[in-house]
Amino acid sequence: MAYCSTMRRRTFLQHTAAVASVPFVGLDRLFAPGAPRADALHVNGERLNSVLAAFNGIGRTASGINRVAYSAADLEGRAFTLNLIRQAGLTPRLDAAGNIFARLDGTDTSLKPILIGSHIDSVTDGGNYDGPLGSFAAIEVARTLRERQVRLRHPLDVVIWQNEEGGTIGSKLVIDALTAADLDKVARSGRTIRDGIGLIGGDVSRLSSAVLRRGDLACYFELHIEQGGLLEKAGKQVGVVQGIVGLRWFEVTITGFANHAGATPMDQRQDAMLAAAKFTVAVNDAVRGEPGRQVATVGRIIVTPNTTNVIPAQAVLTIDLRDLEQAKIERFTARFEQLARDIGAATGTSFAFKRLVDSEPALATSSVMDAIQTSADALGLSHQRMPSGAGHDAQEIGRIAPMGMIFVPSVGGISHSPREFTRPADCANGANVLLNAVVALDAG
Amino acid sequence: MAYCSTMRRRTFLQHTAAVASVPFVGLDRLFAPGAPRADALHVNGERLNSVLAAFNGIGRTASGINRVAYSAADLEGRAFTLNLIRQAGLTPRLDAAGNIFARLDGTDTSLKPILIGSHIDSVTDGGNYDGPLGSFAAIEVARTLRERQVRLRHPLDVVIWQNEEGGTIGSKLVIDALTAADLDKVARSGRTIRDGIGLIGGDVSRLSSAVLRRGDLACYFELHIEQGGLLEKAGKQVGVVQGIVGLRWFEVTITGFANHAGATPMDQRQDAMLAAAKFTVAVNDAVRGEPGRQVATVGRIIVTPNTTNVIPAQAVLTIDLRDLEQAKIERFTARFEQLARDIGAATGTSFAFKRLVDSEPALATSSVMDAIQTSADALGLSHQRMPSGAGHDAQEIGRIAPMGMIFVPSVGGISHSPREFTRPADCANGANVLLNAVVALDAG
Repeated sequence: MAYCSTMRRRTFLQHTAAVASVPFVGLDRLFAPGAPRADALHVNGERLNSVLAAFNGIGRTASGINRVAYSAADLEGRAFTLNLIRQAGLTPRLDAAGNIFARLDGTDTSLKPILIGSHIDSVTDGGNYDGPLGSFAAIEVARTLRERQVRLRHPLDVVIWQNEEGGTIGSKLVIDALTAADLDKVARSGRTIRDGIGLIGGDVSRLSSAVLRRGDLACYFELHIEQGGLLEKAGKQVGVVQGIVGLRWFEVTITGFANHAGATPMDQRQDAMLAAAKFTVAVNDAVRGEPGRQVATVGRIIVTPNTTNVIPAQAVLTIDLRDLEQAKIERFTARFEQLARDIGAATGTSFAFKRLVDSEPALATSSVMDAIQTSADALGLSHQRMPSGAGHDAQEIGRIAPMGMIFVPSVGGISHSPREFTRPADCANGANVLLNAVVALDAG
Repeated sequence: MAYCSTMRRRTFLQHTAAVASVPFVGLDRLFAPGAPRADALHVNGERLNSVLAAFNGIGRTASGINRVAYSAADLEGRAFTLNLIRQAGLTPRLDAAGNIFARLDGTDTSLKPILIGSHIDSVTDGGNYDGPLGSFAAIEVARTLRERQVRLRHPLDVVIWQNEEGGTIGSKLVIDALTAADLDKVARSGRTIRDGIGLIGGDVSRLSSAVLRRGDLACYFELHIEQGGLLEKAGKQVGVVQGIVGLRWFEVTITGFANHAGATPMDQRQDAMLAAAKFTVAVNDAVRGEPGRQVATVGRIIVTPNTTNVIPAQAVLTIDLRDLEQAKIERFTARFEQLARDIGAATGTSFAFKRLVDSEPALATSSVMDAIQTSADALGLSHQRMPSGAGHDAQEIGRIAPMGMIFVPSVGGISHSPREFTRPADCANGANVLLNAVVALDAG
């Protein structure tokens, strides 16, 4: 479990009063639920939203934003971002992995940096908020601190991770979690990761220089859109992320026997499609049948021969299973395997499981969550604790440093879609929570 | 309803005794269940099976028999068949549709021909029995009658229909059931039906000359392998086919909403795959939930985007529904539509139905079924009445003439597969039933 080694207990008020010289206000005002504190800092929300709006044209196609890593649009997006960092009065630096960094110095040179950021690459046919919000908010936070001459004790590093949507590649390189062979994998742009790193200004011969180890960071914050509908449904403005769920992908091959759809009586069939359907329903029932936020999805199925008048011989489907508790992932794995045995026996088919991906939950650090919650309270924003069902660079950095994430609502819970949208006020709220959480954590 | 206009009531014994001059045997012997009658005729079963064995090399590939209509292997198969007809002492004739005919004259020139036959084309990766058995048995029956100098009153026409597996094309042309545009459809061989007809020696400019109308045939018999496992399971040697089931193909488009498989809570999904799975199970339950031989198959499904970590937005599946009763097909259609409405409402998805194929049941004629049953009894073969779940040329000819089919068991109920197999004794049994049924029906 990661923890924040540089944090000591001080009240939010003590710290912000000290560094920002705001006037003292009465305790009754400060602790009224939902009432913003007068000493809370604010970014320039209008500026942040105009940056997001300007960025919305890069990689825009008729079917959505296409700014996949290592594409021309990604390079254009990175140039835009480097320019924005310079406009913020900071100096951009590229690590050997191709991640973009920018530092605001702290007052205590013995302290490790607080890292804030996200990514700017997109999925195919995606939207403009997944990644850019957290990236530009991080730059805006550094810019606001600089403009207001608020000096933190810790150095503040802004980071723009490369190729998050291709599997958190930039952050994985930083925690040294990619193998040499992984570099040969082909990204959505058609380029290998190796070639992509060269293209964006990294240096594959010096990747070790980009590696951060436990103790190298004070902590990591990432602001992101929720990508689900929980906050909207609950009417909350801010999600304090408890962690990024663990994920297990199964490929399940169901083998039956092809036969004539007209001439084979119903009780003499070994129908792989019927078995797959029963299993899909059973997996859904199992996951919904107990309390909790676990999710399981059958998103992909390939049937053979996939012909109207032939009883399917084979169905290959995938299950995407996620939860914040590893024990629950193990328990559902066993449950799915038992369901497969039962359905196989009942339908005369056989089930074979293969694991495609296995990623353990990455829990947020309680002190970092507390800083986020303190910040949201100071801003008078409603909030709730919640897991992140989607993967983020924070799950990688959480392996080596204290970590926390801030969510703001996605309209309709939609993401990875051209319809992805987060309201300007929510974008500004997220950046403000990030700003005050950094300040709170810096105070320790 | 088709009926056999030329049949009058005479006993089987009176007729066969008259034409074949067999000695009279006691009634007690004749009517003992399962005891063969001494006056039953027999084909040369060894010859029939050696013809089937020789034919098994034509179009044989590593993945099965590939003798699809209008292919080089189909042409080779047709040349083999023309030669076999000549060896049987008959003269082959091609109609303008490319069907092969051969006649054994009858004694009464006022009578219309009894037609017997099947097809020799195969599916992709098929077997050697589906079609060839009925075709070569028909030639063997004519040959046996000729060799034994048994003169029928009716002319006996042998027919080898072209392109049965592509949708009973040869027999549809003969009942004038194809449109001009249908001729442009591309067959499995890659050739259009129009080009195929020319290739096999037909003449598309004279198709009307191939048309047979109600009254042109005394009746039609077709021997075929069962293609299911009913006979094998029941331990019966012969199936007396009650008719060819009606068939309705639906394409069902289920529309949900794509969203993130990790970030979208289970109760906020509109999962098209889950709806498709529930529907597939419900269709199966409905069809199995009442007595009868109706069958329904979901054989094909295409999911969009079909990605492990995206909740499916759309699923397009097919249902193949068959029964001997049109009313039951209508009833299940309404049932499926109701299930779709219920599942759509429960899963937040919408269902749209499209009918791809609609073919009414073709019932066998009771007098023709009786002739088949009388023949099986005379041969001491066990039998049962049963529907044909698969389509056959008999369903087309049944629209203009009295029709009946004889089934013999498929080992394991397998067909349309290189593993398709019917035992030599069952092949001979089928030909013998055909022979004695023709004789019985000729007697009228």
